[in-house]
Amino acid sequence: MTTIGIVAFDDVEELDFAGPWEVFGMARKLRDQGDRLLLLAEREAPIRCAKLMRVLPDLTFAQAPKLDVLLVPGGVGTRREVKNEAMTDFLRRAGAQASWVTSVCTGSLLLHEAGFARGKRVTTHWTFIEQLRDRGEVTVLENERYVVDGNLVTAAGVSAGIDMALWLTGQIWGEEFARKVQKQIEYFPRPPYT
Amino acid sequence: MTTIGIVAFDDVEELDFAGPWEVFGMARKLRDQGDRLLLLAEREAPIRCAKLMRVLPDLTFAQAPKLDVLLVPGGVGTRREVKNEAMTDFLRRAGAQASWVTSVCTGSLLLHEAGFARGKRVTTHWTFIEQLRDRGEVTVLENERYVVDGNLVTAAGVSAGIDMALWLTGQIWGEEFARKVQKQIEYFPRPPYT
Repeated sequence: MTTIGIVAFDDVEELDFAGPWEVFGMARKLRDQGDRLLLLAEREAPIRCAKLMRVLPDLTFAQAPKLDVLLVPGGVGTRREVKNEAMTDFLRRAGAQASWVTSVCTGSLLLHEAGFARGKRVTTHWTFIEQLRDRGEVTVLENERYVVDGNLVTAAGVSAGIDMALWLTGQIWGEEFARKVQKQIEYFPRPPYT
Repeated sequence: MTTIGIVAFDDVEELDFAGPWEVFGMARKLRDQGDRLLLLAEREAPIRCAKLMRVLPDLTFAQAPKLDVLLVPGGVGTRREVKNEAMTDFLRRAGAQASWVTSVCTGSLLLHEAGFARGKRVTTHWTFIEQLRDRGEVTVLENERYVVDGNLVTAAGVSAGIDMALWLTGQIWGEEFARKVQKQIEYFPRPPYT
């Protein structure tokens, strides 16, 4: 049984978490092994996302079980959350126990604040490359969909979380299984204006 | 000002609606013209999605304004909703007034029930091609990310909704603008296991 926790906060970017949620949710369904996929927030209240969708957390930080995978999405709310000690404390605690510590988009800024990105190679949304570099003690790569450094996996902006979550699915449960998930969500993308 | 309504129901597939939501939400933000992006459901209660995420509708069907774009996602809940007259009635009413009638995944079955797919070329999730054909009076295409027939646009499964929403963004506001949206959500996909 695998437990995956995705962190949520006001002004989190929708696809940052909904993309990986879909990948891991399909993996859970196909595996049928009682895996847990949880949306975790500081409080029980509904989350108002960056593009105004409202979602309900499954558990608060205080209620969260030990996680195998911690995923931190980004969004404009990270500007506030990077100064929120309740967030940083939770990430530090949950990440220290997790097999994989991951982020999408500007979620990497929160992981840096919590100490996980120090001395590591990471990436983030293309508009935040310099800001993450300016935080120091980190090597920020550009033009990568996701960057793996040990058990730290950081994805580029928004939609890159889907690629990262599929890669991680393959690492945890095997590439053949990841391809099954990919087929179920028909992830054979063809952007229309290239 | 453009009004986009995305329909939600219990057991709707998360990425079916969250992908287009991200695309249109980013378009709204970049345009800054007071566009409305609404999650619409039969009732006010939280929606429990197919992969167990819970989301809150913005408005009920009864409260919905006239839509410029109607988007119907899929998911296992469509098996129930195809027999729900409140759903069919709303789709018929909203779609008749809309400039674009669209679906993702098995949302096309609901559009067929509401009459929009009759005599048209459409697509759906790859596992539902035959079931949609069996409904009759419809030409179901395979291996297409989305199929356009007049103002009816039907996408393949789950992640195909992102491609479709970006295409539609280009049709409504121009290709150059659609590329800006694409860049902001870093939609330059690279599936890891090909």
